[in-house]
Amino acid sequence: MKYSKFFGKTQKEVPKDVLIRSHEYLVRGGFINQVAAGLYDFLPLGFLVLSKLDRIIKEELSKKGVQHLLMPFVHPASLWKETGRYDKIDVLLKFTSARGTDCVLAPTHEETVTDLARKYLKTYKDLPVILNQNQWKYRDEMRATGGLLRTREFLMQDAYSFDCNDVGLDENFKKMSEAYHAIFERIGLDVTVVKADSGTMGGSDSEEFMVLADAGEDKILICDKCDYGMNLEKAEGMSDGDLCTECGKGNFKIVNAIEAGHVFKLGTCYAESMKAYFVDEDGSSKPVIMGCYGIGISRLVASIAEVSNDENGLIWPKNVAPFQINLLSLGKESEVLEKAEELYGELVGEGFEVLYDDRDESAGKKFADSDLIGIPVRLIVSKRSLEAKSVELKYRSGGDAMMIAFDDLSGVLQKFFK
Amino acid sequence: MKYSKFFGKTQKEVPKDVLIRSHEYLVRGGFINQVAAGLYDFLPLGFLVLSKLDRIIKEELSKKGVQHLLMPFVHPASLWKETGRYDKIDVLLKFTSARGTDCVLAPTHEETVTDLARKYLKTYKDLPVILNQNQWKYRDEMRATGGLLRTREFLMQDAYSFDCNDVGLDENFKKMSEAYHAIFERIGLDVTVVKADSGTMGGSDSEEFMVLADAGEDKILICDKCDYGMNLEKAEGMSDGDLCTECGKGNFKIVNAIEAGHVFKLGTCYAESMKAYFVDEDGSSKPVIMGCYGIGISRLVASIAEVSNDENGLIWPKNVAPFQINLLSLGKESEVLEKAEELYGELVGEGFEVLYDDRDESAGKKFADSDLIGIPVRLIVSKRSLEAKSVELKYRSGGDAMMIAFDDLSGVLQKFFK
Repeated sequence: MKYSKFFGKTQKEVPKDVLIRSHEYLVRGGFINQVAAGLYDFLPLGFLVLSKLDRIIKEELSKKGVQHLLMPFVHPASLWKETGRYDKIDVLLKFTSARGTDCVLAPTHEETVTDLARKYLKTYKDLPVILNQNQWKYRDEMRATGGLLRTREFLMQDAYSFDCNDVGLDENFKKMSEAYHAIFERIGLDVTVVKADSGTMGGSDSEEFMVLADAGEDKILICDKCDYGMNLEKAEGMSDGDLCTECGKGNFKIVNAIEAGHVFKLGTCYAESMKAYFVDEDGSSKPVIMGCYGIGISRLVASIAEVSNDENGLIWPKNVAPFQINLLSLGKESEVLEKAEELYGELVGEGFEVLYDDRDESAGKKFADSDLIGIPVRLIVSKRSLEAKSVELKYRSGGDAMMIAFDDLSGVLQKFFK
Repeated sequence: MKYSKFFGKTQKEVPKDVLIRSHEYLVRGGFINQVAAGLYDFLPLGFLVLSKLDRIIKEELSKKGVQHLLMPFVHPASLWKETGRYDKIDVLLKFTSARGTDCVLAPTHEETVTDLARKYLKTYKDLPVILNQNQWKYRDEMRATGGLLRTREFLMQDAYSFDCNDVGLDENFKKMSEAYHAIFERIGLDVTVVKADSGTMGGSDSEEFMVLADAGEDKILICDKCDYGMNLEKAEGMSDGDLCTECGKGNFKIVNAIEAGHVFKLGTCYAESMKAYFVDEDGSSKPVIMGCYGIGISRLVASIAEVSNDENGLIWPKNVAPFQINLLSLGKESEVLEKAEELYGELVGEGFEVLYDDRDESAGKKFADSDLIGIPVRLIVSKRSLEAKSVELKYRSGGDAMMIAFDDLSGVLQKFFK
């Protein structure tokens, strides 16, 4: 892609309601645009990041045998009345359709997936199964701040497991937990797993995957020795400086964090209230045992941006970067422009994702934009580099610029991205 | 994927509100589930088809240089008041958010994309550009019938072009029209292009891509000689039997059709009402010239199902089928089960998408389910086929079953799917 033709260029102005770095850089870099409080456009750069996260998450879940489906975001209120959550969830947006039926905009999908379960999971032979969707949801938040960290509309990965018994639930819970670790590793995001209360979701066992960040709205208690952690609801009665209840050696400290993922053992609460029963091997009728598992995908964009940046801009991990390579031509000499164009064609031909800054702009402006956008590899073609039959390569994550001979470039890039 | 573990098995019962074949087969085959009138779950089979359509459409548009983004489905009403459509579109769902602002659930995105244009497209250098999203939308329909043909929630591909002048608009209109033809060809759907009125969208030139089908809710006038066609609004004053206004030889006939795609030249109507002006090369300020281009993706699933079926079930074109191969084991002999299992592993290993019916069911049940689901290639491993060191292959689209030696199978399949 040529940056001259790219939609959503960088901007210098910091939007006035911006309080945190990820928000500033995502807006200034041209990743997102605010439509209204808590409602964002994902511009081409942001949509590329979001799409990669979406794909990686689905791939890792598929490896665990998870099946993908899609439920609607408008639900009949009747389903939510069955579980009693229609009157309990304050961010639930309610409306009456033209058909005269009460509806809600879904902030989560336990009700609809349990409705599916009672319809399709008839006997033990249909179990176990894990269903997943990556789906947009809506929370009618009063406050919506921090860019993509807390929005009204947001993309969630939400999976639901169904089992005959607790052993099965434990296995699926473990499977999903493993998938989550694989996802966070692949997208280059450090997470800390803490014990949690399951809150309005109901159920028993619950863990959160937290990203430690000052901008996080959640507070967690972590041991400074063994890394054991809890969210504050779970840690009731404990506080900063207390002796760790797990290792007995370290002390708990309270830190800010962003909730990136959450796994719950729901048990039979939804199945019982919505009568999702299956016939077991012995012929008896039992409520199906459920778990639920969620990652805030659009929030991940901000989470990564919040912990992976410097004073000049974003630093995308290579698997989620909008492009792999940011190619810059410096100067107006025809041999520079021709070589840059040629190199762009070659790199794209080799399968690399390249954003080619072909604009007639100063070196300073191109460097600043490249740093702000944060693509992992920056390549420069200039008069100086041509004299050395080379291209200048610099990793956004750090290190000095290096001159790489044209003949060696492909090998260097393939090694880095393999 | 093993069918024994697959979510959303076939069912014999025809839902009572079902009037057309695509609806019956999609529900009975386990592709979709109705949550409420006009609101559907895409079960794993249906989601696979939807995902392939989504991907093919994006790929073909990318080939034309279209850039992908994503706008929210909740919009502030203020944008819709700027164009006056807030009070004009009767299927517009309006609500007030917890923040006290008037909002709508988007049935289309001209307003939000024009808001982006006035913010990011400042000069002629930023033009031309075509922006696309594949995004869920909501129409608050009173009637919602025909399965996926007319739903309240639906997935649309909607692209918007922005140009300096009419020549540019013509070029982009042509480009998008070419992309649409490539898309419909690739997904195996015959379309007839007709002249159309642009209705509430405003603008001038407009064409519809129609699928001829009795179940279609639209009526079009087509010449029986030259295939020239118009929708009924455009064809005002003309009727069944009239002499063709294009070739002067044939006669118009009125036929039912499903609208699959639509391309409009919007001109400057949105740009003017929302003040999306750019600075042209001569320094003057002008409204940006727009086009819009849409394909109903979720409706495509039903459109294909409606025209590609027989008395036994669906017949998916190979590029959009949920799986490529439906492998069936017949009989309980251990050598059959072992060979089927082995073949399943090999085919998956070669990169084929295989639904393996490993259930302990009768041949009749397995055949009926296979025909209903409509996967392009059916392979059978049975005692009889093993004796011939072969597998029985049958194309869902027709022709007799053939015995294919194990050694030849891979070649036959690769040729068919290449």
